[in-house]
Amino acid sequence: MTESIACVFCNGVLSDRIEVLRWARQADLLIGADAGAGHLRSLGLCPHAIIGDMDSIGEDPWQGDATIERVVYPVRKDRSDTELAIEWAIAHGADHVWLFGANGGRFDHVLGHCALLLRYPGRVAVWEAGFWVQALGAGQKTEIRTRAGSVISVFPMSNRPRISLHGMEYNLSEQTLDYATHGLSNSVQQEDATIEVHEGVVLACVEGQMV
Amino acid sequence: MTESIACVFCNGVLSDRIEVLRWARQADLLIGADAGAGHLRSLGLCPHAIIGDMDSIGEDPWQGDATIERVVYPVRKDRSDTELAIEWAIAHGADHVWLFGANGGRFDHVLGHCALLLRYPGRVAVWEAGFWVQALGAGQKTEIRTRAGSVISVFPMSNRPRISLHGMEYNLSEQTLDYATHGLSNSVQQEDATIEVHEGVVLACVEGQMV
Repeated sequence: MTESIACVFCNGVLSDRIEVLRWARQADLLIGADAGAGHLRSLGLCPHAIIGDMDSIGEDPWQGDATIERVVYPVRKDRSDTELAIEWAIAHGADHVWLFGANGGRFDHVLGHCALLLRYPGRVAVWEAGFWVQALGAGQKTEIRTRAGSVISVFPMSNRPRISLHGMEYNLSEQTLDYATHGLSNSVQQEDATIEVHEGVVLACVEGQMV
Repeated sequence: MTESIACVFCNGVLSDRIEVLRWARQADLLIGADAGAGHLRSLGLCPHAIIGDMDSIGEDPWQGDATIERVVYPVRKDRSDTELAIEWAIAHGADHVWLFGANGGRFDHVLGHCALLLRYPGRVAVWEAGFWVQALGAGQKTEIRTRAGSVISVFPMSNRPRISLHGMEYNLSEQTLDYATHGLSNSVQQEDATIEVHEGVVLACVEGQMV
């Protein structure tokens, strides 16, 4: 059974637009998180939904088009527009949610996107300039479907996660990671390379294709 | 006793150069992490040390200047140039290390810088476009020395940290944070606003001055 994919466009910088368009065409749902909808417009795409407090979108570029669902929240709320967009996507059947335009904006928003990856390990991913970033939690094992030579980094996001890496330049076997840059700039050597998390949670950043 | 400050320049984007120069002038030590040294050059500053594997610096702009310490590491190493620069700063007496040019580059490097904040809670901070970002760990309480109205965000970086926030628009009393965007875009209301971490670790992102 094919899994359902939703793309959420955030209001950061959209790098490598041709590549983004290629990914977006595989999606079942396209969602603009507030002003992130402008990226969809600039790519010549039309969202299924626009979600957020609409404090930064300006004029709705699809005004009058009733086929687009608009979910408007108050400005005073305890979740970001991106978080609300992810929740909407999951409620509408998305198995995976890909975030675009999630980097290059304000650093607090970048960190907010990281917090969302950690909330949905293995399910929500950020695409940024050729790299996929997602969280992996205890019990999750993922096969890295990318070409040999691709750069891969793994960062501890909980106190001392325990992980294994196989098929890479630097492999690990049930090793504990401390907060540091030990996991930066590894590289994939085999097509069946894997990351396995035994305990804790990590953020994995892979060049090419992961999800 | 005045505390000693080191500035480390990384190889990301350097935003708001006039402000950066103002901070750098308060420092006791200026350090270039590999090609990050170029930012010092462009600001008209001279580093006390250049540290890294020198795989991206190109030609040394201070060639022949023996007053600058150059610490060259092999390319195959298990710590990033920024991590080595922080260690050098601390070994040379820095109480606090401020990172500049830490955002806007490759996402894996941005995450690597977050891992370094988590390694040194309350001691290493990132400055980025008007915001200070630092980790705070269990038992740390920090007074937010910034103007009322400043934006402040707090993100959980361990499993369910317990924190208190005082003097802000949305205060918390020993509340547990889940991975989510609940802590995004709070604002400082009083000059003696505080963040206190009772358990776990968070990243705090404050507009203006924190450290």
